[in-house]
Amino acid sequence: MNYVSHLESAWDGTRFPAGQVHTIHEGRPLWVRYDLSAISRDMSREDFAERGSSLWRYRELLPLPADIPPVTLGEGMSPILPCPRLGEKFGVENLWIKDESQLPTGSFKSRGMTLAISMAKHFGIRRVALPTNGNAGGAAAAYAARAGMEAFVFLPADTPHVNKLEASLYGAVTYEFEGLISDCGRIVQEGESTMNWFNLSTLREPYRIEGKKTMGLELAEQFGWKLPDVILYPTGGGTGLIGMWKAFQELAELGWLEDNRMPQMVAVQSSGCCPIARAFEAGEWCAAPVTDAATVASGIRVPAAIGDFMILDAVRESGGIAMSVPEERILDWMRLAIRQEGIAVCPETAACIGALEILREREIISSSDQVVIFNTGAVQKYLEAAEVRLPRLSPTKSIDWQEFATQHHA
Amino acid sequence: MNYVSHLESAWDGTRFPAGQVHTIHEGRPLWVRYDLSAISRDMSREDFAERGSSLWRYRELLPLPADIPPVTLGEGMSPILPCPRLGEKFGVENLWIKDESQLPTGSFKSRGMTLAISMAKHFGIRRVALPTNGNAGGAAAAYAARAGMEAFVFLPADTPHVNKLEASLYGAVTYEFEGLISDCGRIVQEGESTMNWFNLSTLREPYRIEGKKTMGLELAEQFGWKLPDVILYPTGGGTGLIGMWKAFQELAELGWLEDNRMPQMVAVQSSGCCPIARAFEAGEWCAAPVTDAATVASGIRVPAAIGDFMILDAVRESGGIAMSVPEERILDWMRLAIRQEGIAVCPETAACIGALEILREREIISSSDQVVIFNTGAVQKYLEAAEVRLPRLSPTKSIDWQEFATQHHA
Repeated sequence: MNYVSHLESAWDGTRFPAGQVHTIHEGRPLWVRYDLSAISRDMSREDFAERGSSLWRYRELLPLPADIPPVTLGEGMSPILPCPRLGEKFGVENLWIKDESQLPTGSFKSRGMTLAISMAKHFGIRRVALPTNGNAGGAAAAYAARAGMEAFVFLPADTPHVNKLEASLYGAVTYEFEGLISDCGRIVQEGESTMNWFNLSTLREPYRIEGKKTMGLELAEQFGWKLPDVILYPTGGGTGLIGMWKAFQELAELGWLEDNRMPQMVAVQSSGCCPIARAFEAGEWCAAPVTDAATVASGIRVPAAIGDFMILDAVRESGGIAMSVPEERILDWMRLAIRQEGIAVCPETAACIGALEILREREIISSSDQVVIFNTGAVQKYLEAAEVRLPRLSPTKSIDWQEFATQHHA
Repeated sequence: MNYVSHLESAWDGTRFPAGQVHTIHEGRPLWVRYDLSAISRDMSREDFAERGSSLWRYRELLPLPADIPPVTLGEGMSPILPCPRLGEKFGVENLWIKDESQLPTGSFKSRGMTLAISMAKHFGIRRVALPTNGNAGGAAAAYAARAGMEAFVFLPADTPHVNKLEASLYGAVTYEFEGLISDCGRIVQEGESTMNWFNLSTLREPYRIEGKKTMGLELAEQFGWKLPDVILYPTGGGTGLIGMWKAFQELAELGWLEDNRMPQMVAVQSSGCCPIARAFEAGEWCAAPVTDAATVASGIRVPAAIGDFMILDAVRESGGIAMSVPEERILDWMRLAIRQEGIAVCPETAACIGALEILREREIISSSDQVVIFNTGAVQKYLEAAEVRLPRLSPTKSIDWQEFATQHHA
C-alpha cells in the first residue's frame, strides 16, 4: 500500500516495477515515480500540518508501504534560521540557513539513510556496505544499528576523526583506506559477490534521493508553499540537490505550490574538487573525474559522481549555476558564518557562504532575492578544520583582572 | 506582556518582582512563578499543537514578554524514541530515550541557553560569562553569538576537545583551567566586578530552569498529557531534573494532565562524583561537596551544586531515588546502548542505562513501568570516551575476500 507507480532509469527512461530490490541501470541511477494524481485525489497539503515533525510526515510521497514501520531516529523538520547579519554583510535582505546539523548524527545524511535502511529492511536485506567521506558512514551505521542490521563502512584515511568514531561506536565494521571515496566505492563493489552485502553507495540505490527530497518538501512547507528565489547547496555526490529538485517538480505537479516559480539551484564546490562546476562551464552533460581531489570540506571531496548529469540537469533547468569557490578561503567563511549567526556551519556549507559573496559581487544574486543556504552538518564533527589552543589558567597564579580587562578591551 | 507573577527564593520563599535582572538570594536559586489561573483561562493545551516545533511553542509558560523575539536556533521537540532491544535486555516492556542530542550544538544545554540569553538580551546585558564542563559552554557561546553578545567561557583543562572547539569557533573568549568546574565558577565570580559580565552559571540566573522545563512540557505533550512512571536523568548541576519537576507541577495546577500521577524521578550520578546520591542516602537536604570528583561523564562531574536541595526535594516528592552507578562500567553501558538502539548515547546518559539495569535487578523498577531516559548530548562530542583505531587498507595490497568473509563470520 503506497503510491509508487514504478522506477525509471534517469539515463534512458527504462521502466522497472516497484516492490523489488533495485540498484542502477547502465551504471546510472533510477528515479522512483509516484501516482501523483492519486495522491492529490486522496489528500491535501494541509494534512501534513497535523502530523509529527519527522520527515515521515510526507509518507504518501515516500516509497515505504504505509503499513511498514520505518527505521527512524525521529529525523526531520530542521529549522529555517534567518541570518540578518550575514545577509547585511553580503547585501541580501532575506537570507536563511536551513540547519541540518540538528538531525540525528548531526548531518543531513540521516534523511537519506532512514529511507535507504527502511527500504532495505523491508526487502529483507540483512547486511549493507558503503564508501563514505564521513557523515554518510556515521548515519548508515546508526540506522543499521537501529534496524538490527550489519553494516560495513569504508572511508578514506583522512576522513574526520569524529566520523570514524561514530561509525565504529554504532557497531559498523569500519575500515580506513589510503585513498579517496571513489577507491572505497570500488572496494565495496569488489566485495559484493563474496560478502553478499547491499551497496548503499550514493545513488546506487534509489531511496536515498527520496529521503533527501524531504529537504525540499520541508522548505516548501516552511515557506508557505511558495519557494525561495535561490538555493545554495554544497555539492559532492549531489543527492541532496537532485532530491530537492525532484521534490519541487512533484509539488508543482500535485498543484500544491502557490505558484510554480522554481528557485535557481546553485551547486557549490571547492576549487580543490569541482568536477560538476567544470562540466557546467564546459556545457557538458557528464563530468570528467577529478584526479587530484583535495579540500578541507570532506563531504564534497567527490572526484566522480554517477548522478553528474542529474545534478547538471537540475541546475540548468532551474536557471542556476554550478560553481567552485577558492579552497583557501573556505575556513574563513566558516568562521565568519559561525560567529555572525551562532550556527554550526560546516566547511561544506562555508563554501556556499563564499558562493553567496561571489554571486553578490557579480550581481548574479540580487539584494531582494530570497536566498536559502543548507547547513549540511555540524561543525562540531570537523575537528581537523580548526586548531584550538586555549590560553590556560593555573591555580597557582591568580588572575590580574585589570590586565585581563585591558587584554579583552573591556 | 507575559504571565510571570513574581520570582521566589527556593531557599526561604522571599518574593522578588518580575521584570528586572535577578541572580541568587542567600547564595541559592530563585523560582520564576506564573499566574497559572490566567494562563488556563486564556488558552488550552491543544493550542500548542498548532505551533511550530521549537520550545518557544510554550510561550505562555516562559518568562520572555510576548512581544520580544527570542534568541533562537530552532531548538526543541526532541524525539521520543522507543528502545525495544534495550528494554528486552533489562526486562522493561516500555522504554524510551528522549534524544536531546538533536538540539542545536548537540545537547540539551541549548534549552537553558535560549532562555537565559533571550532574557539577558531583553534586560540589555551585553556580556556574559560562565564556568562549564563543556556542553553548556558551547551552547552559551552559540546563543551569545546569535544575540550579538560577548561571551567568556571558563572550562576545566580536561573538558572534551569538541566543547573547546565549539566555544572558540562561536567566538567566545575561552580559557581552560587546571581544576574543576567549581574552580571555574569561582573565577567567573571573581571577575564579575571588573569585567562587568553577567554570570550565567547553572542556577545563578533564574531562566535556564525555565528552558529546561520544556523537556517536561514536551514529554507530557508527546505522551498525550499522561506522564510516564519513571524518569532516569543524569544529574550534575540538576537544572534539567529541577526544571522538569517544575513543569509537571505547573501542568498539574493548570489541570492539563489526564491524571495527576507523577513520575518517579531518578537522579543518576557516577560513583566518581555523587554528592546528591550521598545526601539522598544520608537523608540530608543539602549535599556535602565532593573533593576528588572524577568521571568520564564530564557533564556530571559537578562536586557541588547550589540547587542540591531542589534536586533532593524533587526526587523525594516524586517517590524517586538519587543513586550512583559504578564509574568503571559507564563506557560499557554507553557502547551497549549505542549499538543496540542506534542512538548517540553520551556517557552521562550511559550512567542512566546502568541505573536501569541496577533498579531492575533490585526490582525497584517493574517490568510494566513506562520508563524514559534522557539522552542529554551527542556521543559524537565525546572523543575522549572512546579510542578509535581502525584497521587500514592499502592500495598496494589487494583484499582477500574469502579471508575477509571468514574474519567477519560472513
